[in-house]
Amino acid sequence: MKGTLVERSEAVMPAGVHFVGAHPIAGKEKTGVAEGSDLLFKGARCIVTPTKSTDPQALERIKQLWEETGSIVLTMDPHLHDQILGAVSHLPHVAAFALMNALADVRDRQLPSLDLARHSGGGLRDTTRIAASSPEMWRDIFLWNRGNVVSLIEKYQQALEELKHLIKAGEAAKIEQALERAKGEREKLNAGSAVAV
Amino acid sequence: MKGTLVERSEAVMPAGVHFVGAHPIAGKEKTGVAEGSDLLFKGARCIVTPTKSTDPQALERIKQLWEETGSIVLTMDPHLHDQILGAVSHLPHVAAFALMNALADVRDRQLPSLDLARHSGGGLRDTTRIAASSPEMWRDIFLWNRGNVVSLIEKYQQALEELKHLIKAGEAAKIEQALERAKGEREKLNAGSAVAV
Repeated sequence: MKGTLVERSEAVMPAGVHFVGAHPIAGKEKTGVAEGSDLLFKGARCIVTPTKSTDPQALERIKQLWEETGSIVLTMDPHLHDQILGAVSHLPHVAAFALMNALADVRDRQLPSLDLARHSGGGLRDTTRIAASSPEMWRDIFLWNRGNVVSLIEKYQQALEELKHLIKAGEAAKIEQALERAKGEREKLNAGSAVAV
Repeated sequence: MKGTLVERSEAVMPAGVHFVGAHPIAGKEKTGVAEGSDLLFKGARCIVTPTKSTDPQALERIKQLWEETGSIVLTMDPHLHDQILGAVSHLPHVAAFALMNALADVRDRQLPSLDLARHSGGGLRDTTRIAASSPEMWRDIFLWNRGNVVSLIEKYQQALEELKHLIKAGEAAKIEQALERAKGEREKLNAGSAVAV
């Protein structure tokens, strides 16, 4: 997506006009002017995606602009951006959307007394917060980054299959090991910023 | 789990002692006395699980006890409890643990420049908050509720497979439909309480 977007945009710029890709890793599941906040970018990462043909002065100006919003600027190749964002953002969105739909199916097809709002706690609510994101926007992101997203969903399917297999087989020690690993990785996230995306 | 637990506990109670199962839908991903809070149960649901042989007076006392902590008490058959908690709590935990492990695999095996803490925003953090939960406790929960958990993971795998198929096939309108459904279900959750579990 950033890869294609940057290539196409660079190709159509008139002489003297420079294109520099940038992606602030900040946002909310809600959209629109009323949801705006002047603190949204503060402490958040912003990925700037220069290529070999990016004008150095234009790059500096764009980096400065994002720094002035309070962002921490990272620079990255646009194709690498798509792989990394696929992992840290697009896959979690797929996971959250699919989880809501799976639970709705369970309720509709086999467990009519399941009342998701009434029976759930903060765990389900946090895990699926981003499933309330814009369907139009996420449809486009999934399609633009299709290759990476599909391959990442497959990795996730493998991890789920492994955990399911261990539970089915009653492999207590290996289940605990898998959960320990996940917990360790999750705790390392707390070192980063805490801005919604 | 509650099903088996309640049956076994009722069977071993001495004369004049009554067992009543209860499950407060409140908790944190952190454990230990230092993490305690006198507001933990306030506004949270507590599921009390009587059976045909539950003593009515004992049931009333247990319900009162939980109401005094500020909980909203629901009563439910213990086997139904296991199906419902499997859906609203155990499956989201599986989803979060597996997501962390899948991302760690992606980083370790194909994308070494992926830095989960540095590149992620609040989306990944919220989606995986409960992956920091106790591995010992969740190992046991998954095994005690094995039948329901395995069947729920399979529903989730189906929902993921469907979404992956639509993305792979470029089915824009159907992707949007699937995301709309998830968003609608997620927004209905906001009507409930917002206590961690």
